[in-house]
Amino acid sequence: MKFMSEQEIMDHYHMTHAIKDVKETLMSLVAGKIKTEERIVIESDGNTMLYMPCVDLKENFSLIKIISIFPGNPDKGLSTSQAVSILSELKTGKHVATLDASYLTRLRTGAITGIATDSLARQDAEVVGVIGTGGMAFEQLLGVLAVRTVKKILLYNRTMEKAQLFAEQLRSAAIDADIEVVSEVNQLTAQADIINCATKSHEAVFDHRAVKQGTHINGLGSYLPSMREINVDTIAAADLIVLDDWEGAKYEAGEFIEAEALGRFNWNEALSLTDLISQQVSRQHINDITIFKSVGASYYDLAVGVGAYKLMQ
Amino acid sequence: MKFMSEQEIMDHYHMTHAIKDVKETLMSLVAGKIKTEERIVIESDGNTMLYMPCVDLKENFSLIKIISIFPGNPDKGLSTSQAVSILSELKTGKHVATLDASYLTRLRTGAITGIATDSLARQDAEVVGVIGTGGMAFEQLLGVLAVRTVKKILLYNRTMEKAQLFAEQLRSAAIDADIEVVSEVNQLTAQADIINCATKSHEAVFDHRAVKQGTHINGLGSYLPSMREINVDTIAAADLIVLDDWEGAKYEAGEFIEAEALGRFNWNEALSLTDLISQQVSRQHINDITIFKSVGASYYDLAVGVGAYKLMQ
Repeated sequence: MKFMSEQEIMDHYHMTHAIKDVKETLMSLVAGKIKTEERIVIESDGNTMLYMPCVDLKENFSLIKIISIFPGNPDKGLSTSQAVSILSELKTGKHVATLDASYLTRLRTGAITGIATDSLARQDAEVVGVIGTGGMAFEQLLGVLAVRTVKKILLYNRTMEKAQLFAEQLRSAAIDADIEVVSEVNQLTAQADIINCATKSHEAVFDHRAVKQGTHINGLGSYLPSMREINVDTIAAADLIVLDDWEGAKYEAGEFIEAEALGRFNWNEALSLTDLISQQVSRQHINDITIFKSVGASYYDLAVGVGAYKLMQ
Repeated sequence: MKFMSEQEIMDHYHMTHAIKDVKETLMSLVAGKIKTEERIVIESDGNTMLYMPCVDLKENFSLIKIISIFPGNPDKGLSTSQAVSILSELKTGKHVATLDASYLTRLRTGAITGIATDSLARQDAEVVGVIGTGGMAFEQLLGVLAVRTVKKILLYNRTMEKAQLFAEQLRSAAIDADIEVVSEVNQLTAQADIINCATKSHEAVFDHRAVKQGTHINGLGSYLPSMREINVDTIAAADLIVLDDWEGAKYEAGEFIEAEALGRFNWNEALSLTDLISQQVSRQHINDITIFKSVGASYYDLAVGVGAYKLMQ
């Protein structure tokens, strides 16, 4: 059995690989070649262990990701989420690799954001606004940068110093765009063609009236029914809404659950990422407001786990 | 993260450790300190992936065992079952070890057999009969040898050559008892004080009329409703039946499911291994027939996974 550390995976497996592998797995999902079971959740003392298994009958691998979500961890200088995956080969049942899956989780989330953004954002989108500059923001942004030529990146964080640190991280990653930290979220929404949200907020993180026509919004916070990130008015006004996992979102995406309860949104209005890929759906009009909401699913973890393993063989 | 290979674990962690650790975990289970969720099963092409998670709030660890069960594997020179476990520490959510779990699975099954045999077999039991000398038989026998002074071991296997190979394995393990291969199963039942069954049979592997009064039987084959191992007449005649996991057995233990359907057995007659440990139940009369049926459960895997990890720190 091979052990693949975060650093080894980061050295070899990047956003372009992840986007290609996630697209192929979505096609396998459409073709009925992916089997999943509902994830197992075990809670204790406010902490959660999540177990997400998935089988790929095309590639002949199965993968289970194990994530611990410990909300008190940042106070101890540790990450809230820690993930590891076990990859098994389906011709012999052999367990072939243990993968540190924290980077892979961020990367696959960025990759699905990139795939959705490629179909949904305006072709000429060149200004990206980032709301929330925490752990998931960097790869979410890399996903967007993989599919659009971005000239300007605006950063907003509740604690402004964190946005400034993130700006430095982007500069040292040699990202070729103007990078600006803003102190008011409206400065960001007024300019952004694409808005990335990755917060732990329990209320909408921007004012709907400040959103430009033609904006595409990516949301990946709000992964619990109690959380809110995208404005419900924006959900109601959106011309096209795409969910990374239609079933998962119904149980997890807080602001969409609220919007549905308020009669301002219906799940049947939303497409899934597989619809986008298999039916080649894209934005219809230059002034449409589009939303991509991600909650994650086991087959995305499988896509990048198998992809990284095969690449690094 | 630490990787613990089968050989490393075999070098350090043995039956006496496993018996002690399984007993402690059973006490934690009684005390409500163990949380489990129903295992996830994903089947494809006749092969099965099983995911068995468990959380121990006393030791502050969680463990998930991933087992592939591939019935066609022996034709390729591979094991039918291959297991790996991930151990996570519950103070920080850190994933601390990947354990090769094939030996640990056999060992914990032997350990629970030992614990049950210690309470159920006659104190003066000295002849053990082994029916089925495949992959699980060695540690099942070690479990019995850990709790009784055995003078004679009788071996029966459908393919006699395999029983002879197993006899050689026992001799090279320096097991201090007479070892004899028999060609007829009745030769074994007529002498054995303890009968160990570990087969993949779909019918009873011994004749009830040949079973001596006072015999204790351990069964660990028959892990699917379609399988049979212990004679239904013996189940009906038994004075005390103990299941390693009362709930699991109802869905898995083939001959008990049949005996119940035939009106010859009622699940409420059976005790669980936790009853045995917490209420200090043991055989009542020298002539009683007692049965211990094992189907396995995630908390046994957790017991030995945590035990091996702590010992080898």
